[in-house]
Amino acid sequence: MAATSSPPETDKEPNWFSRMFSSNSSTSQGSSSTNRVTSIINPSFESFGDILRFRRSADYHPRQQQATMDESLVDIAINAESDISSLADKSKGTIDFFHTPSGAITTTQGSHYADWSTIDWLSDQARDRLRHQVITEQKHDSMWKRFVAFHDALSGWLCVLLVGINIGIIAAIVDIGAVWLTNIKIGVCLPAFYLSQEQCCWTASNQTYDQYQHVHCAHWHGWSSLFHVTSDTAAEYVVNYIAYIVTGVFFATICAILVRTFAPYACGSGVPEVKTILSGFIIRGYFGAWTLLIKSIGMILATSANLLLGKEGPFVHCSSCCGNIFARLFPKYGQNEAKKREILSAAAAAGVSVAFGAPIGGVLFSLEEVSYYFSLKTLWRSFFCAMIASLIVKILSPFENQHLGLFYVGNRYRWFYFEMIPFIILGILGGLFGALFIKLNLAWCKIRKTTRLGRYPVLEVVMVALVTLIVSYPNPYTRMPMSTLIRRLISSCEPDDESLLCDYRRNITSAYEKNDSAKPLSGVWISMGLLFSALFTQTILFIFTFGIKVPCGLFIPSLTLGAITGRIVGILVETFVYYRPNFFLFTIECSATDEQCVVPGFYAVVGACAFLGGVTRMTVSLVVIMVELTGGLSYSVPLMCAALISKLVGDALVGEGIYDAHIKLNNYPYLDIKAEFIDQSTATDLMENKQDKNELIMLPRDGLTLSDLITILRTHKYNGYPVIASIEEASIIGFVLRRDLESIIQQRTLSNIESNMNTCISFSRTTQQQLNSIHLYRLLNRSPTTITLDTPTTTIIDLCRKLGAQTILITNEKGHLVGLLTKKDIIAYVKQKKLK
Amino acid sequence: MAATSSPPETDKEPNWFSRMFSSNSSTSQGSSSTNRVTSIINPSFESFGDILRFRRSADYHPRQQQATMDESLVDIAINAESDISSLADKSKGTIDFFHTPSGAITTTQGSHYADWSTIDWLSDQARDRLRHQVITEQKHDSMWKRFVAFHDALSGWLCVLLVGINIGIIAAIVDIGAVWLTNIKIGVCLPAFYLSQEQCCWTASNQTYDQYQHVHCAHWHGWSSLFHVTSDTAAEYVVNYIAYIVTGVFFATICAILVRTFAPYACGSGVPEVKTILSGFIIRGYFGAWTLLIKSIGMILATSANLLLGKEGPFVHCSSCCGNIFARLFPKYGQNEAKKREILSAAAAAGVSVAFGAPIGGVLFSLEEVSYYFSLKTLWRSFFCAMIASLIVKILSPFENQHLGLFYVGNRYRWFYFEMIPFIILGILGGLFGALFIKLNLAWCKIRKTTRLGRYPVLEVVMVALVTLIVSYPNPYTRMPMSTLIRRLISSCEPDDESLLCDYRRNITSAYEKNDSAKPLSGVWISMGLLFSALFTQTILFIFTFGIKVPCGLFIPSLTLGAITGRIVGILVETFVYYRPNFFLFTIECSATDEQCVVPGFYAVVGACAFLGGVTRMTVSLVVIMVELTGGLSYSVPLMCAALISKLVGDALVGEGIYDAHIKLNNYPYLDIKAEFIDQSTATDLMENKQDKNELIMLPRDGLTLSDLITILRTHKYNGYPVIASIEEASIIGFVLRRDLESIIQQRTLSNIESNMNTCISFSRTTQQQLNSIHLYRLLNRSPTTITLDTPTTTIIDLCRKLGAQTILITNEKGHLVGLLTKKDIIAYVKQKKLK
Repeated sequence: MAATSSPPETDKEPNWFSRMFSSNSSTSQGSSSTNRVTSIINPSFESFGDILRFRRSADYHPRQQQATMDESLVDIAINAESDISSLADKSKGTIDFFHTPSGAITTTQGSHYADWSTIDWLSDQARDRLRHQVITEQKHDSMWKRFVAFHDALSGWLCVLLVGINIGIIAAIVDIGAVWLTNIKIGVCLPAFYLSQEQCCWTASNQTYDQYQHVHCAHWHGWSSLFHVTSDTAAEYVVNYIAYIVTGVFFATICAILVRTFAPYACGSGVPEVKTILSGFIIRGYFGAWTLLIKSIGMILATSANLLLGKEGPFVHCSSCCGNIFARLFPKYGQNEAKKREILSAAAAAGVSVAFGAPIGGVLFSLEEVSYYFSLKTLWRSFFCAMIASLIVKILSPFENQHLGLFYVGNRYRWFYFEMIPFIILGILGGLFGALFIKLNLAWCKIRKTTRLGRYPVLEVVMVALVTLIVSYPNPYTRMPMSTLIRRLISSCEPDDESLLCDYRRNITSAYEKNDSAKPLSGVWISMGLLFSALFTQTILFIFTFGIKVPCGLFIPSLTLGAITGRIVGILVETFVYYRPNFFLFTIECSATDEQCVVPGFYAVVGACAFLGGVTRMTVSLVVIMVELTGGLSYSVPLMCAALISKLVGDALVGEGIYDAHIKLNNYPYLDIKAEFIDQSTATDLMENKQDKNELIMLPRDGLTLSDLITILRTHKYNGYPVIASIEEASIIGFVLRRDLESIIQQRTLSNIESNMNTCISFSRTTQQQLNSIHLYRLLNRSPTTITLDTPTTTIIDLCRKLGAQTILITNEKGHLVGLLTKKDIIAYVKQKKLK
Repeated sequence: MAATSSPPETDKEPNWFSRMFSSNSSTSQGSSSTNRVTSIINPSFESFGDILRFRRSADYHPRQQQATMDESLVDIAINAESDISSLADKSKGTIDFFHTPSGAITTTQGSHYADWSTIDWLSDQARDRLRHQVITEQKHDSMWKRFVAFHDALSGWLCVLLVGINIGIIAAIVDIGAVWLTNIKIGVCLPAFYLSQEQCCWTASNQTYDQYQHVHCAHWHGWSSLFHVTSDTAAEYVVNYIAYIVTGVFFATICAILVRTFAPYACGSGVPEVKTILSGFIIRGYFGAWTLLIKSIGMILATSANLLLGKEGPFVHCSSCCGNIFARLFPKYGQNEAKKREILSAAAAAGVSVAFGAPIGGVLFSLEEVSYYFSLKTLWRSFFCAMIASLIVKILSPFENQHLGLFYVGNRYRWFYFEMIPFIILGILGGLFGALFIKLNLAWCKIRKTTRLGRYPVLEVVMVALVTLIVSYPNPYTRMPMSTLIRRLISSCEPDDESLLCDYRRNITSAYEKNDSAKPLSGVWISMGLLFSALFTQTILFIFTFGIKVPCGLFIPSLTLGAITGRIVGILVETFVYYRPNFFLFTIECSATDEQCVVPGFYAVVGACAFLGGVTRMTVSLVVIMVELTGGLSYSVPLMCAALISKLVGDALVGEGIYDAHIKLNNYPYLDIKAEFIDQSTATDLMENKQDKNELIMLPRDGLTLSDLITILRTHKYNGYPVIASIEEASIIGFVLRRDLESIIQQRTLSNIESNMNTCISFSRTTQQQLNSIHLYRLLNRSPTTITLDTPTTTIIDLCRKLGAQTILITNEKGHLVGLLTKKDIIAYVKQKKLK
C-alpha cells in the first residue's frame, strides 16, 4: 500500500555503516582480536548482488543449521548424494524465498522447520503456551470451546493410548509372522501350516524330543520328508540344509529389496536416529507411514532369515513412527516439534516394552538411553503407553505366557556370595566383548561407507544371509532361533531332562553328597564345544550383520552371545565345585544349602546382561529389563554387578556405547545430554573455533529498505538475523527469523513489486504513521538468549541442552552484540575439542 | 602496604553520581516507569552511616536470600523465634563483616553459604570444574598425585557405597529394635527376651493359633501371666490392656523428649525438607549426626508405640544424613553444596530401598518425588547405593525372607479384565481418601502452628499416643503392628486357614461349582465389621498423627488403610460373584478359570496402592514399589490403573500431594521442578511484583574507595552486587559476592585501619601500578546470567530450575542494567500468581 510515495530519506544515504567493534582495552580480554577495518559497501536497492555485511575478526554468524548426515541413510534416500550443500538447497529452508510455501505468520500455527535442521525448543514452547492460553481463555465462551479445552487437556493421553494400542497390534502381528516364517525354513505343520514346530506338536500324541530339546511329531514335516527323501540319510540332511539356506536367503533378499525400494529409512536399528531426532533434529520421512510398514514387514523377514539381528531397535523406531503418525491427529503435538517429542519419548518406551514385555524397563530405556528431555509428565505417559502396548501384545499373542516375561525363570534360582567372582568375570568378558564389537563394527561400517561396497546394499544382505545360513545350520544351537536358544541356555536342568546340555550323573538318593549329585558327563562337554564354536561364528557374523540395510536390532544377538558365554562359565564353575568341593570359597555356602549350589542357567542370565551392557552401556534400564525378562526380582544384585563391571571395562576401552558410536560415525548433530563436560574455555574460545567467524550479519532497527532486506536474505542464507539498535550502538533489540522475513517480503512483492522496493523496514515499536514503511516489531523475538564473552562453555552447552536454545547471542562488556553461536557451532566445538 | 600515600584523586570528588536511568521511549516498553530523581548522597569515608544507593522505580535488588521457614522446625530449633530478620542476623551471611570467620578467597575452597539461604548451582559447578582440572593437570606430577586423581574419580562411588552400607546397618538395627519393643507391649518371650511373639513360638512345640492368626505358645508370656492373673478373665484383659497402654505411652514420651531435647530436626517425615534442601536450600544441622542418631532411635520408639506412622520418610531423612556425613570425607562433595546434592539424591533412594526392600522403586522415588537435578550418573549411583543398602539389610535381618519383598505374594494371583471395575472404584476411593487426608491434616497442622498447642509438642505426642493405644487395643486388627496387618490382608485364604477372615465354606470336592466353593460365612462378616471400625478410627488418628513431633512417615499407614479398604471391596465383590455367578460380567472369565475367580487379598494390594497414590501422588515409583513389595511383576496393570485413577481424582480435589502441601504450609522456598507453568508474563511483570522494587545497588567499576565499599556493605546487606562500567553507562561488567568483598576488607583493615580507608577499589582488568588501590577483578563473576525485560517468566523459571541460576540480571534494550531478580523473587512471584 501507498507505494507511490517517495522513499524516506533514510534511503538516500546509508545511515548505517560498518564500524569497528573494537572493545576498549579493559574489556577486550580473552579474545585475541586483531581488528580489521571491514569493507564498506553502500547498499542500494538497484544492486541486488551487493553484500550487506559487517566483517571483523570477532564477529561470528549463524549458519543455516544443516548437519552433515548419515551417508548410510542418504545414499539410498537421496541417490547417494551426501554433499551437504546440495542437500541444503533441496531442503525447504533455503529455497528461493519468493517461493516459500507457507506465508502465514501466526505464532500459534505449526512451525516449518527445514529438513536436516535443528529445532528451537524455546520458541516452540512459547507457541504452545500461547495456544494453551488461548484455549483456556475461550473455555467459558461456549460448550464447544469447553469441549475443545477438555479434548486438548486429554489429547496427550489419548495420543499415547492410540500409540500403545497400535504398536501392540503391530508387535503381535510381527511376532506371529516371524514364528511362522522361521519355521518354514525347517518344515511345515501339515494340519495347520501357520503353526511352529513346537506348537504343531503340542496337540500331537507322538511327541519325541531329540537331544537338543527339539520336539518331533507326526504332524510336523521337514522339507526332506515333503520331498520324500528317506530319513536318517545324508540326502535328508542335504535337502534340509539346502531348503534352510534357500528359504532364508529368499526372505533376506525380499526384505532388502523392500527396504531399498519403498523405505530407505527402514534399515538399521533406528535407535541412533531416534536419539538424534529426540534431541531436536528434523529428518523428514524418518517416522513416516511407509517406513513403519516396511520396517514391520522387514522385521518379520529379517528375523525369519536367521540373521544375527533382533527386533528391539526396529520396534523403537516403529513405535516412534506410530507416535509421529498419531501426533498428526492432535495439532497440539503434530504442529509443534518440541511437544511432539514428548509423544515420541513415550512411544520409544512402548517399543522396548513390546519387544520384551518389559514395560518398566522400556520406560527406563527411553529415559536413560533414548530421550533428551524427559519431564515427569512424560515419564508417567511413557509408563502408560508401555503398559498398554505390552498388555495388547500379551492379549493378542496366542502362544506366549500371558503374564510373564519372555525368558521367564521366576525366582527359582538362589545365588551365593562366592558366585560374585564368576559374575565379575562375566562382567569383564561382557565389557571386552562390547568394546571389541563396537570397534570392529565401526571399522566395517566405515569401510562400507567409503568403498564401493555401500553401493550394493542388497547384494551385501544376500551375502551376509548366505554365509550366516551356511554356517549356522550344522550347529544345532545356531540353527534354532536365537530366542529359543536363550531360553534353553537360561533354563536349569530338570532331573528328567535328557538333552545334551543336561547330561549329568545325579545321585538324588544320597542327600549328603549334594555336590556329587551333578557330575557333568560327556554330553555336557559336547555341548560346550558346540557352544564355543557358536560363540565364535556368531560373534563374527554379528559384527558384519549390524549395519546391513535391513531392520536390525542388537539386543537379542548380544543376549544370545552373553548367554552362551554365561552358560559356558557356569558349567566350568559347576565342574570346579564338583571336583573341588572343599575349596575354601565353597565350603560354607555350598554345604549349607539343600539346593543345587551352582546353576549354570543363572550364569547365562548374568552373562546375557553383561554382554548387552558392554555393547549398549545401559545401566539401570538394562538391569530392570533383565529382571522383567526373567521375572526374578531377587537377581538384581548379580545383574547389577555384571552390568556395572561390563560398563566400567567397556568405557575404559571404548568411550561410548554402540548407539553413540553410530551417531558419531554418521556425524549427526547430537549434543550428549548425559555427558559432563569438564572444560575451562569460554565463549571467546568457542567463537575462535567457529568456521565462519568473520561474518556476522546484523540488521539495524531502522533504515533498511525492502530491497536491502531482499539482498541480505538472498546473499546470506541464515536461519535468522539479530536486530541491533543502530550501527553506532550494537545493543541487541531482538532476533528475527528468516522464514518470517521471507513471508513478509512475499506478501509485499506480490502486491506491487517495483515501487515497494523503496519501502522502509522498521523494527521499532513506535508506530509513527509512515505510509511507506513496514513495521516488523511483532516479528521480533525480543528475548534472545544472550551471554557475555566470558561465559564458560559448560554454561553455553547447558543453555542448549537444558533450556533448548538454538541461537545464542554474545555481547561484550558494553552490552553490544559481538557474536553469535548456534547449537551446531557448539556441537562442532565439542566434537573438535573432544570434551567429556 | 603503601598506606601512607595520599588518597588518589578519584576520592577528592565523587566521580560517580546517581543519574536517571530513564530509557528512551523506544526501549522503555513494558515497565510503567515513573522515573523519580534519586537522592544524591556524597559518600565519604567519615560518614559510615551514609547511604550509597541508586533509586528509581524500575530498579530492583537482590535481598539476602532468607526464606521464611517452618515454624514447626524453628520453634524448637531456635526458641520459637520465627522472625526472619532476627534469624538473618544470626546466620553467617550477615554477621558484621569485620568478623567474617573465613578470610580465604580461593575459588577451589569450600563455599560458605548462610543458613536458610539458597545455593548458587552455577558457581558451585564452576568451582568443581576448576578443582577437577587442577587434579587432572597435576596427575602426571607424581605417583601421589596420580593416586589423588584416581581417588577423586572414585570418590563418588566410594561415598555412596559407604552410605549404602551404613543405612543398611541402621535399617537392620531399627527393624530388629522395633520388632522387639513392639512385642514388649504384649508380653515377653521368657527363653529369649529379644524375640517377638512369632519368633518365640517358632521353636516351641505347643503352638496354637487364635482366630486372628496370632500364635500362642508356652514360651510366650503376656503381661497378665507375668503378673499371675488368671487367664480368660476380665482381669487378664484389663491387665494386658493397661500394660499395652503404659508401655506404648512410655515409648512415645521418651521419643518425644529425645527429639525435643537433642535433635529438634528429627521430627516429622523429613521428605518435604529433603526435597527443599535438594532443590538448593541450606538448613544447617538438618542432616547432622545428632539428627541421624535421634531419628533412628525415635523411629524404633515411635513405631513400637503403635502410633499411626511408618518408617519410610524417616529412613529417607536418615540416609540423607548418612550422605551428608560421609560427604565430609570427600572434599569434592563435602565442600561443594551442588555436588553434595548428587550424593544426597542417591542416599534418598537408599532410604526407600531399606524401608521396603525396593531398590528400583527407591531410585524412582528419588527421581520422581525427592530429587531436583537427577543426572544419569546420579541415577546409576543411586541404583548402586539402593542395591547395596537393601542387600545389607537383607543380610543382617535375621527374620526376613532373604530375597523377597516385604509383603511378598509372588505371581500367585491372577486377575481378570472385569475386575478393572472394582480396581477403578478403589482408585477413586484412594483419590478421595488422599484429598480428605491432605485437607484435614493441613488444617490441623495450621491449628498447631497458630495456637498454643504448638508450644507443647511432648504433651501432644503423649495425648495422641494415649488415644491411639486406648482405641487400638480392643480391635485385634489395630492391636497388631501395621505391617503384620497388611501381610494378613494381602494374603489369600488357604483351605486350612481357620482365621476369622478366612471363614468360608468350601466345596473343594466339587470341581464344577467353583464359585460355590467359597461362600463367606459369619466370620468373614465379623472381620468386615472390625475392619470397618479399624478403617474409621485409624483414618482419624492418622490425620492427627502425621505432623506430631516424633519421626513419622506415612507410607505404612496409607498402605494399611488402603489394604483394609481393598480387602473390604474384595470381599464384597467375591460375595457378589458368589451370589450372582451368572451376571454378564463374570460369566465368561470366571467360568473359564480353574482358579479362584476373585481373590480379596489382591484387592488389598490394589487398594494399598490407590491410597498411597492418593496421599503422595506418586506415579511410576509407586507402581514399582508395590511390584517390588509384593514380588508380582504381573500385577503392574491393575496397580497402574489404580494409581492413575487415584492421582486423577486426588489432583482434581486437592492440587498437590502431601509433601508439596507441607512444603507450601511451611513456606519453604521450593520451586517445583515438575510443574509446567503456563504464563504469558515477562521479566517486567516479575519486577513489578518485587517487594523492594525501588532499590538496586550497583558498584561502579572504578572510583569507589574502601570506605565507600564498607558503607555499602554495612548498609545494604545483600548477597552480592552487580558491577557496572560507570554511572553514566550501566553496562554490566560482572557480579561480585558479598562474602568475597568482606574478606578483602578484613585483610585490608586488619593490616592498617585508618590510612587504608582512602584506598581505591577497582574492578578493572588493567593493572595500572597504582600503589594505593585494590584490584578486585579476580573476584568478579564476569558471566552473570543476564536477560532482557521481555524475557518470558517461564524462561526465567527454567533458568533457575534447569540451569540453577541464583541471581539474574536484567538489562534494557541498550544493554544497561535495570534490575535484578533472585530465585526467591521468582518463587514469591510463582506463589503469588499461583502459576501452574
